[in-house]
Amino acid sequence: MEKEKKLRGRVTIPTDVDVVPQTLELYERWGADAIRDCDGTDFPAELRAVGAKVYSTYYTTRKDNAWAKANPDEVQQCYIMTAFRMAENGPLKIELMDDISPELMQPNTRDDIKRWWEVVDRTTGEPISPDAWRYEDGFVIIDEPVPYHEYTVSFLCYLIWDPVHMYNAVVNDWQNVEHQITFDVRQPKTHKFTMERLRKFIAEHPYVSVIRYTTFFHQFTLVFDALKREKYVDWYGYSASVSPYILEQFEKEVGYTFRPEFIIDQGYFNNQYRVPSKEFRDFQAFQRREVAKLAKEMVDITHECGKEAMMFLGDHWIGTEPFMEEFASIGLDAVVGSVGNGSTLRLISDIPGVKYTEGRFLPYFFPDTFHEGGDPVREAKENWVTARRAILRKPIDRIGYGGYLKLACDFPEFLDYVESVCDEFRLLYENAKGTTPYCVKTVAVLNSWGKMRAWGCHMVHHALYQKQNYSYAGVIEALSGAPFDVKFISFEDIIADPKVLDGIDVIINVGDGDTAHTGGVYWENPTISAAIRGFIANGGGFIGVGQPSGHQYQGRYFQLAGAMGVEKETGFTLNYDKYNWDEHREHFITADCTKEIDFGEGQKNIFAHAGTTILRQKDKEVQMAVNDFGKGRTVYISGLPYSFENSRLLYRSILWAAHGEEILHQWYSTNFNVEVHAFVKNGKYCVVNNTYVPQKTTVYRGDGTSFDLEMAANEILWYEI
Amino acid sequence: MEKEKKLRGRVTIPTDVDVVPQTLELYERWGADAIRDCDGTDFPAELRAVGAKVYSTYYTTRKDNAWAKANPDEVQQCYIMTAFRMAENGPLKIELMDDISPELMQPNTRDDIKRWWEVVDRTTGEPISPDAWRYEDGFVIIDEPVPYHEYTVSFLCYLIWDPVHMYNAVVNDWQNVEHQITFDVRQPKTHKFTMERLRKFIAEHPYVSVIRYTTFFHQFTLVFDALKREKYVDWYGYSASVSPYILEQFEKEVGYTFRPEFIIDQGYFNNQYRVPSKEFRDFQAFQRREVAKLAKEMVDITHECGKEAMMFLGDHWIGTEPFMEEFASIGLDAVVGSVGNGSTLRLISDIPGVKYTEGRFLPYFFPDTFHEGGDPVREAKENWVTARRAILRKPIDRIGYGGYLKLACDFPEFLDYVESVCDEFRLLYENAKGTTPYCVKTVAVLNSWGKMRAWGCHMVHHALYQKQNYSYAGVIEALSGAPFDVKFISFEDIIADPKVLDGIDVIINVGDGDTAHTGGVYWENPTISAAIRGFIANGGGFIGVGQPSGHQYQGRYFQLAGAMGVEKETGFTLNYDKYNWDEHREHFITADCTKEIDFGEGQKNIFAHAGTTILRQKDKEVQMAVNDFGKGRTVYISGLPYSFENSRLLYRSILWAAHGEEILHQWYSTNFNVEVHAFVKNGKYCVVNNTYVPQKTTVYRGDGTSFDLEMAANEILWYEI
Repeated sequence: MEKEKKLRGRVTIPTDVDVVPQTLELYERWGADAIRDCDGTDFPAELRAVGAKVYSTYYTTRKDNAWAKANPDEVQQCYIMTAFRMAENGPLKIELMDDISPELMQPNTRDDIKRWWEVVDRTTGEPISPDAWRYEDGFVIIDEPVPYHEYTVSFLCYLIWDPVHMYNAVVNDWQNVEHQITFDVRQPKTHKFTMERLRKFIAEHPYVSVIRYTTFFHQFTLVFDALKREKYVDWYGYSASVSPYILEQFEKEVGYTFRPEFIIDQGYFNNQYRVPSKEFRDFQAFQRREVAKLAKEMVDITHECGKEAMMFLGDHWIGTEPFMEEFASIGLDAVVGSVGNGSTLRLISDIPGVKYTEGRFLPYFFPDTFHEGGDPVREAKENWVTARRAILRKPIDRIGYGGYLKLACDFPEFLDYVESVCDEFRLLYENAKGTTPYCVKTVAVLNSWGKMRAWGCHMVHHALYQKQNYSYAGVIEALSGAPFDVKFISFEDIIADPKVLDGIDVIINVGDGDTAHTGGVYWENPTISAAIRGFIANGGGFIGVGQPSGHQYQGRYFQLAGAMGVEKETGFTLNYDKYNWDEHREHFITADCTKEIDFGEGQKNIFAHAGTTILRQKDKEVQMAVNDFGKGRTVYISGLPYSFENSRLLYRSILWAAHGEEILHQWYSTNFNVEVHAFVKNGKYCVVNNTYVPQKTTVYRGDGTSFDLEMAANEILWYEI
Repeated sequence: MEKEKKLRGRVTIPTDVDVVPQTLELYERWGADAIRDCDGTDFPAELRAVGAKVYSTYYTTRKDNAWAKANPDEVQQCYIMTAFRMAENGPLKIELMDDISPELMQPNTRDDIKRWWEVVDRTTGEPISPDAWRYEDGFVIIDEPVPYHEYTVSFLCYLIWDPVHMYNAVVNDWQNVEHQITFDVRQPKTHKFTMERLRKFIAEHPYVSVIRYTTFFHQFTLVFDALKREKYVDWYGYSASVSPYILEQFEKEVGYTFRPEFIIDQGYFNNQYRVPSKEFRDFQAFQRREVAKLAKEMVDITHECGKEAMMFLGDHWIGTEPFMEEFASIGLDAVVGSVGNGSTLRLISDIPGVKYTEGRFLPYFFPDTFHEGGDPVREAKENWVTARRAILRKPIDRIGYGGYLKLACDFPEFLDYVESVCDEFRLLYENAKGTTPYCVKTVAVLNSWGKMRAWGCHMVHHALYQKQNYSYAGVIEALSGAPFDVKFISFEDIIADPKVLDGIDVIINVGDGDTAHTGGVYWENPTISAAIRGFIANGGGFIGVGQPSGHQYQGRYFQLAGAMGVEKETGFTLNYDKYNWDEHREHFITADCTKEIDFGEGQKNIFAHAGTTILRQKDKEVQMAVNDFGKGRTVYISGLPYSFENSRLLYRSILWAAHGEEILHQWYSTNFNVEVHAFVKNGKYCVVNNTYVPQKTTVYRGDGTSFDLEMAANEILWYEI
């Protein structure tokens, strides 16, 4: 076992004018090499001599109301839809801003509303003629609607208060704060202005070494209701990246007429659960190209001025899809993001095309945690240990903290803990750098988004928990720290070239039926279904979680029912007798289970075909089953919330599906609370206790030899191979 | 309270040659007026003088193997589909009879298989060219299939063993029984033969007064697997009512080409859960007309010979849909059927167009109940009390028992109980006859089948319980004994004439989404959705149970989400914040609840819109909610298994939805275990204790006056108005 040696760097700390001595002390203790200023303060002059990199946040789209007010036509816009309104006899008046905060947005009546708005008869699904409606004082009036049909209005609004600024103001109850108006860098006047503004900012902040963009141009979808409560949020939403100016360019590029419905999508706004339409995919591709082009202009200026350009993956990142190829063309030096769990860590650390990535760890030094009686150490431990699993698979290059350093200084135990984390991180990075850790198998998560939503599958707003998604997001979280080469592929990838499946050992399809995650209507495409069936029949593994391949078509709900050997009872097969209910409780996959398996929300009404091996069923509803299909193997699991025990279940499922039972005892811990990662190229491996209590285990090396080990809580131990 | 007076008649008893004295004794004690012979025995000559009606079962399609064997081309046929078989590289061989009992059926290779069979590529959904496959020794061979596509073969089979005869033989382990081969009365030779056979039978059985047809021509769908286990059953299935001879007539009538897929329906065989296709509706209509025409021939002969014609609603009843208009044209005197619960009672008693109906009660006098230690009284009580609720709403005209009388004679307590039931039934009938009991409201169950499946909604095989349907069938069972005028209407009825909704107080839509019961794709038809929304907005009531109007379309899963104020979270609306979770536990509808409401299987992921009143939610999943919509009211319930308490819940829901709270105390019992039915025209009303224990209640008369009452177990008390 290797003795730790003291390393420095790879750590960013926040500062403020009132904590200069403390900053200097912690800069040393934590081995920091970068300091970030705080929102709304000047960087303390005393710190300039330290030799640290200095980060400065920079907002491209707000914090200049003078400009915004002088150029109201270039304020940012978004598409929004009214609620459904039913016509009775006589005219129908639809209030546009009903239950939408008027402080947040304002209908855009400056542009041609007959061209850019759309009134849709949701009962027929057809837009009504622009001549059949008129606008008056905040209302759209349909004079002769069809009685008892429901109508919606899709319309453009100006974002007259930046949604993140509004959120901060509301949550923190800021009084008399001037609403920061957004402006749209992609419009001609603001474009020119912005580039000058950036040069001016850099010139006025010579001590700054890194411009940290927040982020570029378009806010993710965030809408507040009349009571200023959050009404709609989509961290991946594109509805606020529109304007007639941009949409006319889009029309020119794609060669067909734009419809608001491309963005509105029946009120679902193309959220991540929707199988994306061709038009929306076209729109995203257009935005990626255009946003990258413009972002590159700013990055070029940054470089020209001798500074580094860093992007914050949050707030206004729409269009800069970090896993898509346009992203690298921006030329950014770095990406920084907030780390909520293993999945969000990989969301940052897996980004290609930048020189380095940085994770902002929790807790932020804010009063919600750092108050009398607060326990920031506990929060820090949870965050670190959860993220560490993922860091060991693909490390971020730097870590950092944010908030008010002054608050943290009142918690010396916390300062000590962070010091230990910084040391642990640097050692880890040193041992892991430049190498890919040993991957047991190659696993592909297959859905409608592929790499564009890598590690973010099922995510509505960053790591937000939801009853409807934790049983599926658990799979992604387990993978984020598991010793597999994990790819995210889309159905379009397969259509473009079925060879994308070459080299993959196990395909995973997870989510509810008829969502983008399982594929919905894509399963009607013979290229898709034949490719996946062929993949399995030829020896590939397939793991389906929830309602995999769930889409009613041609006699089946699960389009892979033949391969998986399980099907969902929708009522259509009630007439068929079902005789296969035997439970096989002993199996390679479940060998480490210590208790009844937690399937989370699980599934109802799943039954097995004859010949399928049921591993678990509850009241004649299958929760887990395995099947042989041609030369391949399949595993069905009804749901898999994240836990160490379920992570092991998935690990064993992948191994079994890939016919890999015999390699179980390679870089392996018998105790599933402990994991082993090998960095073969660097001649190192580590054993890591993921829990807050001591653990005993037997550790297997790559050659199958083993030793017993007792570990302290949270401990990570490094060894030479 | 009225004193009972001794009445006679309205009762049918079984007999046998070995129980003549007992038959005579019970004939007197039970007040019987009809005797039925037993399957396979002669009617005892000693009983001919009694003056009773004598029923004789008659099988039109079997029990003459000589004929069947001499005319193999006129053996009955059915369509069947193989399992899905996936092609790999090279030819695909599909075994037709894999896992189908070869004793039951045999492929029909006599007719042109290229015309009447179909090989479907289930991956594309298209049939493949007849030139692309060939038949050989029980296999269909596709020489050049598309690799990894799945194929099925739809083919015609001869029914070489009558499925009901096979079932009886297998279940009772009959040894060396000759398989009764079916023959098809609709084919020319057998048609002629059958009419002569009928005349001969009548001539040879002069003492028979009622020919009890079992039933007419086509077995409902019943398939056995290779182990002779039931593989598929559909009491409403039409797949065994086909033959090239018939299908050519169908083609002529409808003017388009027949496809096996019209019957096969992707392997779902147009079961009751499937939204019926136009082609299947056409086919059913064709069959109704043709079967009725031929059945009439037999009934005419029966009448010509001076006998009554009675139809048994079971086994081979397909085509004689008793609630459709063709049925009355057959000219039957009576229908008899087995009574499993209230719904199956109404399935018989509500049949229009016959002179009388008869219910066959449980238990049958078979050894499974009538053995040492058996408790036939308990079974009889449960059956009678369950059915009595429904009889009080719409009486059958007669009751009867079946089986071996000798067995019953060993249970004197049972004989006493049946005597009391016969007396109770006759008094009930006397008091209720010729009148419609007081109906509080008019209720319409809306689904894709309407009156064709009246009282049989959700039923797979008679009163068979299934985990997937009891929460829905409970609504129908509750209605079968509730004081409402209950109609069953279909979406096609509304399309044909929206005025069908006139006069209805409350519409009920119950079942899983995208099934025939809730309507599926019908909700994309503006005529439907506008009619229902208009109905509610103009003051109508709507009760949705399960996933009412569930069909993903234009921004909604529940197409009536606007009216009901609840919606199902499918993932597509996870981005929307939901703030309405307050539970209103006190409400008119739930005022009689004594415990947590039993929603059966309930629902997951239902949420409420702002303004909707949630009556019950579990872990932020709505189980029950009410809403105002225009002048109307809606009630959402996640599931409603049958119980007296839930029956009251539905009663109050209907009253509330119809704005009828103020008429609650009319013909009403405060204790929901007791019900009140008023036969106003006859000046009578009754109070009935539905339980097996004594009950106390307060009874309200029609004028709102009331009195307290203590009742014995099961008791029914009659009063003058």
